[in-house]
Amino acid sequence: MKDLNIGLIGYGFMGRAHSNAYRKVNQFFKLGYRPVMKAACARDGAQITEFADNWGWESVETDWRKLIARPDIDAIDICSPNVTHHDIAIEAAKAGKMVLCEKPLAMNAAEGRAMVDAIEKAGVANMVWFNYRRVPAIALAKQIMDEGRIGRVFHYRAKYLQDWTISAKVPQGGATLWRLDIDVAGSGVTGDLLAHSIDTAIWLNGPVEAVTAMTETFIKEREVQGQPGTLKPVGIDDACAFLVRFRNGSIGTFESTRYARGRKNQNTFEVNGENGSVCFDLEDAHRLQYFDHGDVSHLHGWRDLLVTDSDHPYMGHWWVPGCVIGYEHTFIHAVADFLTGLETGVAVQPDFRCALQTQLICDSVLESARSGQWVKVPEA
Amino acid sequence: MKDLNIGLIGYGFMGRAHSNAYRKVNQFFKLGYRPVMKAACARDGAQITEFADNWGWESVETDWRKLIARPDIDAIDICSPNVTHHDIAIEAAKAGKMVLCEKPLAMNAAEGRAMVDAIEKAGVANMVWFNYRRVPAIALAKQIMDEGRIGRVFHYRAKYLQDWTISAKVPQGGATLWRLDIDVAGSGVTGDLLAHSIDTAIWLNGPVEAVTAMTETFIKEREVQGQPGTLKPVGIDDACAFLVRFRNGSIGTFESTRYARGRKNQNTFEVNGENGSVCFDLEDAHRLQYFDHGDVSHLHGWRDLLVTDSDHPYMGHWWVPGCVIGYEHTFIHAVADFLTGLETGVAVQPDFRCALQTQLICDSVLESARSGQWVKVPEA
Amino acid sequence: MKDLNIGLIGYGFMGRAHSNAYRKVNQFFKLGYRPVMKAACARDGAQITEFADNWGWESVETDWRKLIARPDIDAIDICSPNVTHHDIAIEAAKAGKMVLCEKPLAMNAAEGRAMVDAIEKAGVANMVWFNYRRVPAIALAKQIMDEGRIGRVFHYRAKYLQDWTISAKVPQGGATLWRLDIDVAGSGVTGDLLAHSIDTAIWLNGPVEAVTAMTETFIKEREVQGQPGTLKPVGIDDACAFLVRFRNGSIGTFESTRYARGRKNQNTFEVNGENGSVCFDLEDAHRLQYFDHGDVSHLHGWRDLLVTDSDHPYMGHWWVPGCVIGYEHTFIHAVADFLTGLETGVAVQPDFRCALQTQLICDSVLESARSGQWVKVPEA
Amino acid sequence: MKDLNIGLIGYGFMGRAHSNAYRKVNQFFKLGYRPVMKAACARDGAQITEFADNWGWESVETDWRKLIARPDIDAIDICSPNVTHHDIAIEAAKAGKMVLCEKPLAMNAAEGRAMVDAIEKAGVANMVWFNYRRVPAIALAKQIMDEGRIGRVFHYRAKYLQDWTISAKVPQGGATLWRLDIDVAGSGVTGDLLAHSIDTAIWLNGPVEAVTAMTETFIKEREVQGQPGTLKPVGIDDACAFLVRFRNGSIGTFESTRYARGRKNQNTFEVNGENGSVCFDLEDAHRLQYFDHGDVSHLHGWRDLLVTDSDHPYMGHWWVPGCVIGYEHTFIHAVADFLTGLETGVAVQPDFRCALQTQLICDSVLESARSGQWVKVPEA
Repeated sequence: MKDLNIGLIGYGFMGRAHSNAYRKVNQFFKLGYRPVMKAACARDGAQITEFADNWGWESVETDWRKLIARPDIDAIDICSPNVTHHDIAIEAAKAGKMVLCEKPLAMNAAEGRAMVDAIEKAGVANMVWFNYRRVPAIALAKQIMDEGRIGRVFHYRAKYLQDWTISAKVPQGGATLWRLDIDVAGSGVTGDLLAHSIDTAIWLNGPVEAVTAMTETFIKEREVQGQPGTLKPVGIDDACAFLVRFRNGSIGTFESTRYARGRKNQNTFEVNGENGSVCFDLEDAHRLQYFDHGDVSHLHGWRDLLVTDSDHPYMGHWWVPGCVIGYEHTFIHAVADFLTGLETGVAVQPDFRCALQTQLICDSVLESARSGQWVKVPEA
Repeated sequence: MKDLNIGLIGYGFMGRAHSNAYRKVNQFFKLGYRPVMKAACARDGAQITEFADNWGWESVETDWRKLIARPDIDAIDICSPNVTHHDIAIEAAKAGKMVLCEKPLAMNAAEGRAMVDAIEKAGVANMVWFNYRRVPAIALAKQIMDEGRIGRVFHYRAKYLQDWTISAKVPQGGATLWRLDIDVAGSGVTGDLLAHSIDTAIWLNGPVEAVTAMTETFIKEREVQGQPGTLKPVGIDDACAFLVRFRNGSIGTFESTRYARGRKNQNTFEVNGENGSVCFDLEDAHRLQYFDHGDVSHLHGWRDLLVTDSDHPYMGHWWVPGCVIGYEHTFIHAVADFLTGLETGVAVQPDFRCALQTQLICDSVLESARSGQWVKVPEA
Repeated sequence: MKDLNIGLIGYGFMGRAHSNAYRKVNQFFKLGYRPVMKAACARDGAQITEFADNWGWESVETDWRKLIARPDIDAIDICSPNVTHHDIAIEAAKAGKMVLCEKPLAMNAAEGRAMVDAIEKAGVANMVWFNYRRVPAIALAKQIMDEGRIGRVFHYRAKYLQDWTISAKVPQGGATLWRLDIDVAGSGVTGDLLAHSIDTAIWLNGPVEAVTAMTETFIKEREVQGQPGTLKPVGIDDACAFLVRFRNGSIGTFESTRYARGRKNQNTFEVNGENGSVCFDLEDAHRLQYFDHGDVSHLHGWRDLLVTDSDHPYMGHWWVPGCVIGYEHTFIHAVADFLTGLETGVAVQPDFRCALQTQLICDSVLESARSGQWVKVPEA
Repeated sequence: MKDLNIGLIGYGFMGRAHSNAYRKVNQFFKLGYRPVMKAACARDGAQITEFADNWGWESVETDWRKLIARPDIDAIDICSPNVTHHDIAIEAAKAGKMVLCEKPLAMNAAEGRAMVDAIEKAGVANMVWFNYRRVPAIALAKQIMDEGRIGRVFHYRAKYLQDWTISAKVPQGGATLWRLDIDVAGSGVTGDLLAHSIDTAIWLNGPVEAVTAMTETFIKEREVQGQPGTLKPVGIDDACAFLVRFRNGSIGTFESTRYARGRKNQNTFEVNGENGSVCFDLEDAHRLQYFDHGDVSHLHGWRDLLVTDSDHPYMGHWWVPGCVIGYEHTFIHAVADFLTGLETGVAVQPDFRCALQTQLICDSVLESARSGQWVKVPEA
């Protein structure tokens, strides 16, 4: 088994999720590679040291350029805020490091394109952490569609609803709320949540031709975190909805918000095909709804698939039928798939180019929301 | 189309449900008979007159013996409290009238047996209103089992939960609360609710061999309705649970109560067979859950059948797929089935003898609850 | 109790539903008026006679102008295809008859405006049968919002999904499939299904400012019903989706199709407010989901309201808690509300003017779908 | 932070689950102790070495007596089959080791009582791994009941349904199917599944007074695993159902089987109290249903609690609201609670004595199933 030395940048929510994945993957998957938790990096030395101690990172850095420069690092894992992705990814690629980058790929498509260029020029292995492709039920939806079970697709509809920013008292910025700060996040729900929905959609249903969109910012200014009394206009989109024409002739609706009272992490999609349909809700991530028009007529019905059997995607690696896994496991699956890609030479998806396509759709959506016009989506 | 002249006894909840059924059945079912609402009967002349006016009964009686004696009455429909069933049914049979009797058949099996004797001696058409057999989803469960889809049965489990008697302030007796008065009802949840569960069970899964049971009366005395300050011991069972061995080798559990906070009319059953299962909940009466072990392995799942298609039992008579029917329709179906039975000569089920079997199980349950012993159920 | 003599035009699905409503309303509602089923009208004399016999209409007509001219008719009920609404309604208004018209109001807003003018000039009582306002659970949603329980609204989302036209073999036109013929229906899912969604939305959430929309016709030509081999281009919209800005600052998404495999009559909406949310699905019409942010923090959760209690809208008129009603009851409620409006002098809603507002939104949606532009909705 | 040196016995399903828990607990919980994975033990040297390598156990043993004798071991964790629990636990206690034992405690209550005596005489810390107490939703049910929200309990009902032994071709015995071998397991579903249900029940609802039970073995003989052609009578109970009287006056029903087609790990319970109810299903382990009779009357409804908020039991240690955890986390919680018990001096529950109470109920159930009589449950 070969070692793969990881250098992690960032120690927030994603830093924890990735660290957990590196620690667990080899106990559950038979792989040719073993990730070694070599170094964790962040500007705040005390914080990153505490983090590294807790998770078992062997060393720390406070300057990401130094981390990239270290010869004992094989792969750079970018978990820091969106605004940092571009520079780190390009520098890492130039240094010949593999790059694993959190989503969304970049602040915008222009940045993303530069990153793809650098990565592909360097020829390094790369992945963007759209972890929801690794939810077993979503992977099963993909399998069902690939098996031809639902046939020609007519409709795709996706929602990603949360409710944690309804209060006007929630501030923006800082270490934990940078997702609300346009200068650090690049966009609001479009990059944070809809990017997930879009990545899943193009994986399942193929390319998007054109979009028309609407965004809204319900709360116009918020206090800056850590600066009591300092109000700053809110630049992000609190909510976004758009209509889509896919290349395969199907049509779609997408919506995301952080103002849907009662919805905590309701990432849903439904695909309606000529012969069947699939329907998913992340709040019940262990289930997939499947309708098969081929069933006997008086026994037609949505099947509630409990996706915990050993012949379901990824599940053979875990416990026994009926025993669920959790949110964090999607990241373990992503690491397993990345390492398998290294071993087999078949690059893992979504890579940077694929993530750029999602970024281009996001940018088109935001452009349409500004112009009120349909926007044709460029190719990555 | 032939007329069938009905004489109805009782004007309570069931009086309304039956009247509605007689009024509607011919608009939705093509039948050889037409029920004519000839006379309604109750002791209180003012009440029954108002009721008859509202529902379109052509005449009223205040003495059920007179009603039975009327030559223009073909069938007696008994909707009055349980304590009256025995005398009315026997007298009606002696007079050569058809008899339709609300459930439970009688106060106890001894009464029931006398009623069956009288009815069969008279050779009159008869039916007991176990209306839930006419819920389309339950009829579909029957069809699925008859089609051999679930195979050898291992388990049957039934519940019938309500919550309307939790308050100690609910009185007993009188016109509306006689179900709580042992002298009028004969038993509590056993006759009122479990009789339904048992009728469905023996229809779906065949005869019961033996039972062991437990009953409980949580509130020991209640005021008599209409007599403020007069307390009377509660004689009925507030709750009842029992275990069952069926003749086919399967085993079952049954439970009923009026003390299940939050359950309004939760009449459920689940049958597990070698190759499949069915599961039903009356609070979602338009749905049936069906599991088919014959489905492709990675697509196993409970199917949520929306029982509103024209090829589902009874539903072709109503609206269009996706449009539900309600509680009252089960009574309309019962009338349609009864009239069809008259036309075809194939007696409708459950008849008095079948209902006696249910009564015998109820009696065995109550006997077991008293003795703490398993009780072998006699044959009807 | 006063008689209200009804003249019904049309004997299809809606003709049945209305007839049933007239027959039942007085048994369940105490009203000052009694609808008298005076005459039913359709061009085909044999058909309408059979229909009238079945439902108890006292007489028949084969020319709607004659029906309107009859002095013994107080109210004209229009259940014939959309293309007939305009002429009948205007003629009936001119004759001083009350008018009850099936939805959508008209083929388009121009027709609708002429109808409103005629009706208001005549000063006759009028109603458009948007029956879903009378689903108890939807009426409860309205009550919850009127009670101020969810506060400022951020989001409204609606879907109306069916799957009955997926097969290319389904023909268009004729008595039963005129909804697929643009010349008779005026539009496809927009007028047939989205009109319902829009009516509910403006009732719950107020006026719509502007829309951007997309339509699709998946199957481009279909055989004409009754003319084997004769293909005709399909002019209707098979599917339609649109984005909305409401006057109150909230935003919305709407979608409808007849190509959502597995969805039979899935008319849904969800409203997210600052303090709570409501969510409804017509396929479980007896339930309403309600989220109350005011609940104790660790006990937050969507409440599954079983809308069958006597203190729920309309339900006190029916059976007992836990006993559901069906699709047809919404029409009975509509009649009851119309008659109550006559009695109290407070006009029932939605009237023609209100339905015109819905028609204007439908027209704006179709216009936007053609132009690809946002369209500002005119006022009725 | 103090080290706690663990010696693990067994490497099956539970060996994996416990190993994972020891590896992860300190990253997510701030604790005074750190479990050190000192040694893993099993008879098969090759197997245990591979297992230890995979999970990071520092050393291996092939004789559990040697493991217990090692001075560098603080605690013995028993994950081997039921038949071994008695001897190992007593020997470990005698050696002054802490003991963590998988459930059920023993083959029968006699063994269990000897184990409790030894453990208590030795005065060592001890725990039995009834992991489901550590499902956040079940812990929340406990909290709701402890807060007095549901009031006097009337009903408790529990089911534990699986379907993996329906095929007559499933053999018994050996490393993976010892649960089907009476000589190794002691009982069938009663000890394996109902022990869980009972532990939860007495935790939530207090002591059980008496039971009456029924068991069934549907398949009478099975091949011995690894010995093709060798049939052996099946000694275990395939299914078991029983009725209960609790000391607090409430009554209960319990059922378990491995023959419920379509149920994979459906461990459910419902508690009905005077003022509210709770309801749980392990197949949706992240949810708890709660009914509060104190809600406004027209807004009564079962609340669907998504148990992922930071103020829910255990969940503050994990990710963010809306992100679920899985089956394995219950074991991590158990370790965290055990270590916290060491630190605070408040012994963790369930300890051996508590588990003996569950064993006594299991024994009473099996005795009643044999005798057909109600059995009074002895005190632990």
